[in-house]
Amino acid sequence: MRLGRVVGRVWSSAKTDQFEGVKFLLIQPVDAQGAAAGRSLVAVDAVGAGAGETVYWCRGREASYAMLPSEVGTDAAVVGIVDSVTTTGSG
Amino acid sequence: MRLGRVVGRVWSSAKTDQFEGVKFLLIQPVDAQGAAAGRSLVAVDAVGAGAGETVYWCRGREASYAMLPSEVGTDAAVVGIVDSVTTTGSG
Amino acid sequence: MRLGRVVGRVWSSAKTDQFEGVKFLLIQPVDAQGAAAGRSLVAVDAVGAGAGETVYWCRGREASYAMLPSEVGTDAAVVGIVDSVTTTGSG
Amino acid sequence: MRLGRVVGRVWSSAKTDQFEGVKFLLIQPVDAQGAAAGRSLVAVDAVGAGAGETVYWCRGREASYAMLPSEVGTDAAVVGIVDSVTTTGSG
Amino acid sequence: MRLGRVVGRVWSSAKTDQFEGVKFLLIQPVDAQGAAAGRSLVAVDAVGAGAGETVYWCRGREASYAMLPSEVGTDAAVVGIVDSVTTTGSG
Repeated sequence: MRLGRVVGRVWSSAKTDQFEGVKFLLIQPVDAQGAAAGRSLVAVDAVGAGAGETVYWCRGREASYAMLPSEVGTDAAVVGIVDSVTTTGSG
Repeated sequence: MRLGRVVGRVWSSAKTDQFEGVKFLLIQPVDAQGAAAGRSLVAVDAVGAGAGETVYWCRGREASYAMLPSEVGTDAAVVGIVDSVTTTGSG
Repeated sequence: MRLGRVVGRVWSSAKTDQFEGVKFLLIQPVDAQGAAAGRSLVAVDAVGAGAGETVYWCRGREASYAMLPSEVGTDAAVVGIVDSVTTTGSG
Repeated sequence: MRLGRVVGRVWSSAKTDQFEGVKFLLIQPVDAQGAAAGRSLVAVDAVGAGAGETVYWCRGREASYAMLPSEVGTDAAVVGIVDSVTTTGSG
Repeated sequence: MRLGRVVGRVWSSAKTDQFEGVKFLLIQPVDAQGAAAGRSLVAVDAVGAGAGETVYWCRGREASYAMLPSEVGTDAAVVGIVDSVTTTGSG
């Protein structure tokens, strides 16, 4: 998974059937200090994340598993909200 | 998924059988502001997207799911057309 | 899929059994204008592509599907030869 | 797999059910000499790795296999701890 | 697949059960001319490759297939040793 921040929403009416009723989040990947690190992406929301929250997201087939029992063929899903990140001195 | 813009079409007569009758779109990945962000790719069209439209596309095995019940073994598919993107101040 | 150009062949005698009789192409990824865009890769040939031809190639598990009914566990396959690419003004 | 160093932990209470009881490590990818090489990621721990240890981690669906018989749909898992890396002169 | 050169070995005693008895190679990805191209990775050896040899390696789920009938959930495997690479003038 990668860390990310919820920076927006994506709205879409013309889409494949599997995405009916799905919430799309715009995610900015971030590093452990919260700085932007990489390109934004569109992920489905599996945990009820809100604007500005730091989350971790999953890609590939595992993203779809997070949506079960709904069958949503997505390649990216927000699967958790971060409480805190603790880093060690050796980083 | 990533955001992208439909910037062209790819035409091909010699191809694997699975791609018969499939429409190939040339996609330019873009960021939330619509600026180009990354290399263009060829995606199959699962939603009837047209030239210049902003879309979101999916990669990996999930791209093939978007084409069901047709069995199209693709690693990239346009799965939705974007109505709008709303971004928050914390982005 | 990505666009690419066939720039060579890779010859190999020591390989896993699944690759017996398979043709390996050296592919240079290119953009819509034909300029090199990214690192070369080795792909199996599913369509009979020749030197210098512009093709599109698929990665991941879908690459293996292109070789069916042969069971070739490859992560990259040339799945079509490009006739032409048409780009729109908004690109 | 890639080499990495355990540089922290990620704590999360709101997450998908599959992640209950799972330990999340913050991993900094490193090269063979131990220098940082790429962006940090969040991986589940399949081997009991501790802070500062050099590990190798797996991504994609194979990451989930490392957690069996637990069904954890993750796209990254630490699957081993490195004792040593030996490099040859031709590198 | 990508071309690579075997530049070392990785030794590990604490690892998931699936990796018992598996040989880990440190691979430096290279281009068709043998120059380094990208970050090193750890791949399981499916063909008996030795130090300094030029190989091609596979990633993703297909890497695991190369190890059958052993069930090794790896995301990277060396699947062949390169005899030669021939490049065309149009590259």
